[in-house]
Amino acid sequence: MLLDEGRLEANLARMKARLAGLGVAFRPHLKTAKSLDVARRAMTGASGPAMVSTLREAAYFAQGGVRDLIYGVGIAPQKLGRVGAIRRHGADLAVILDSVAQAEAVAAWVRASGDPLPVLIEVDADGHRSGVAPEDADGLAAIGRTLVAGGATLRGVLLHAGDSYGLSDPQAIADAAEAERAAAARAAGHLRAAGLPCPVVSVGSTPTARFARHLDGVTEMRAGVFMFGDLFQAGIGSCVVGDIALSVLATVIGHRRAEGWIIVDAGWMALSRDRGTARQAVDQGYGLVCDRAGRPYPDLIVRDANQEHGIVALRAGSPAALPELAVGARLRILPNHACATGAQHDRYHVLDAAGRPHATWPRINGW
Amino acid sequence: MLLDEGRLEANLARMKARLAGLGVAFRPHLKTAKSLDVARRAMTGASGPAMVSTLREAAYFAQGGVRDLIYGVGIAPQKLGRVGAIRRHGADLAVILDSVAQAEAVAAWVRASGDPLPVLIEVDADGHRSGVAPEDADGLAAIGRTLVAGGATLRGVLLHAGDSYGLSDPQAIADAAEAERAAAARAAGHLRAAGLPCPVVSVGSTPTARFARHLDGVTEMRAGVFMFGDLFQAGIGSCVVGDIALSVLATVIGHRRAEGWIIVDAGWMALSRDRGTARQAVDQGYGLVCDRAGRPYPDLIVRDANQEHGIVALRAGSPAALPELAVGARLRILPNHACATGAQHDRYHVLDAAGRPHATWPRINGW
Repeated sequence: MLLDEGRLEANLARMKARLAGLGVAFRPHLKTAKSLDVARRAMTGASGPAMVSTLREAAYFAQGGVRDLIYGVGIAPQKLGRVGAIRRHGADLAVILDSVAQAEAVAAWVRASGDPLPVLIEVDADGHRSGVAPEDADGLAAIGRTLVAGGATLRGVLLHAGDSYGLSDPQAIADAAEAERAAAARAAGHLRAAGLPCPVVSVGSTPTARFARHLDGVTEMRAGVFMFGDLFQAGIGSCVVGDIALSVLATVIGHRRAEGWIIVDAGWMALSRDRGTARQAVDQGYGLVCDRAGRPYPDLIVRDANQEHGIVALRAGSPAALPELAVGARLRILPNHACATGAQHDRYHVLDAAGRPHATWPRINGW
Repeated sequence: MLLDEGRLEANLARMKARLAGLGVAFRPHLKTAKSLDVARRAMTGASGPAMVSTLREAAYFAQGGVRDLIYGVGIAPQKLGRVGAIRRHGADLAVILDSVAQAEAVAAWVRASGDPLPVLIEVDADGHRSGVAPEDADGLAAIGRTLVAGGATLRGVLLHAGDSYGLSDPQAIADAAEAERAAAARAAGHLRAAGLPCPVVSVGSTPTARFARHLDGVTEMRAGVFMFGDLFQAGIGSCVVGDIALSVLATVIGHRRAEGWIIVDAGWMALSRDRGTARQAVDQGYGLVCDRAGRPYPDLIVRDANQEHGIVALRAGSPAALPELAVGARLRILPNHACATGAQHDRYHVLDAAGRPHATWPRINGW
């Protein structure tokens, strides 16, 4: 797996400038990169803020000096011991939840441990997944009161506009960002009206971060996959193919000339099984094929993939010519989904401006 | 990730008995398990034979004492140095190829290194992927002569009936097995008629291993995913759901009662992005949901998955009732594809006959 450091830095600089202009803090989501080297470039300070998707990430980044962390998956009671252990080592790790049942479990744990765990209430932006409805003033207040009564620290609300991944028009994404912002402000208002604190109003997704018109009432934006970019985000319009910093190096191992197939040694194990672009206007198969220098071949994609084999072929109906690529030729394959492709690998081979590998950055996986 | 040791042992015993009855050697494919603990139970001898899909697997299993290994992805010239290094440490690692260009690269490497590398010619069983056509006597002989003239060891032919994965009728799979067997025997015959050696005639896939009627002319069968089984293999009919030894432990973290959703902390990162059952008669979503003891709930599947969230719901149109599962409840999710799900994890939590974890077996990933 190759990482183009110049593209990574450009993607980060663009997002930081944009969010500074919108007047909100930037909490990078580290679930895509899972790398301290990337985190240090992405974060606005040496100790955060940052967002993680697993407790293994939380422990890893906390060990690396990141202090301001949110674990962004609704907390299960069984995980509170591990959360507490990471906090005792000095990290200000917060959790999220969306039910009174979870708030009661947290309150019981806070009473037993004496640790005033910070909690954000997850609010639903768009029906995508989890979260209290933003108009449910009673529900929000009940969760908030349970937390405060138990001695937990009610830190605010958190939303994720996951349905923005299904859009592709900048206006529609800007509208989704406005809906996310308005839902966040509304939920925060309900908590404050009930006399409860809500210092943090956190929203985020790569598409809404890219297209939000304003973020009044919001204190921070989270985004992660934009750092690397991918073909799915290019299909949404939140980046262009030339922004994609991540690719998989593959080698030609054979041909099936009658079929127009070039066989390479990168299959779904290296590229991931993600086929997200199948639902978009341009289906990129298992990835778009570039030459060794990263220049895409016209219409050349990984049409099918087995565990360690990729079948490279022209997009159906393409007028382009199949390039002549001998056994041993090297290619770079741009991924559908950087989060999924990244997770198939344990390190980044980092490329300098001349396209030469000049560093190896480790990454973590698992839980 | 949980591994039911009893089911694993039963799956292995059944396959070994079946192949012994068919009079062929068994070369387990270790790409699914990537674990020495599993390999030692799967292999018919302490030193093999076995099959691998990456050179990292080859090095790992060679270090663990496995001697008779085939690297089952067409060799790229750049990899011969690594192959040689593994061989110098004592493993009899063979490679496969399907072109004169590759044979010439191998011959040049053999001349330079003095290592008489063993090679199998990959033959196409069914148009699925790679391989010389079994009727291409001239092509087979040209590759074989190039290898022998260069000092390589021509060990035989190797086929994989990959198209059998698209079938679901035992008769049709038995026919695919017969086609694979006949193609193997034909290709071996062409080599021998040209005065070339062909001691090994290797075929294999889990479905054809399960349903082959006879294997005359074949010397060994390869299969891997049968060890764990999965929902895709159950859809083909090469196992039943009760044979599946692999599952992912998940915890309920929330509900969306109006939608009939139970949210769990296992998403595509834990389950993999594999949606192979979407093409089968019964679409299992991202996995079939069982209780903590491994008993499937009727029609309860992971309907959708984000990175660390699974949305558990009833299959569309199901008359079953959604079970009442509180936050914190534990579930087991059976995978669509054991090879893909396994690769998302770095260890097996092994369950004894009472369903209790009694060992942890490491596994490797990467290249």
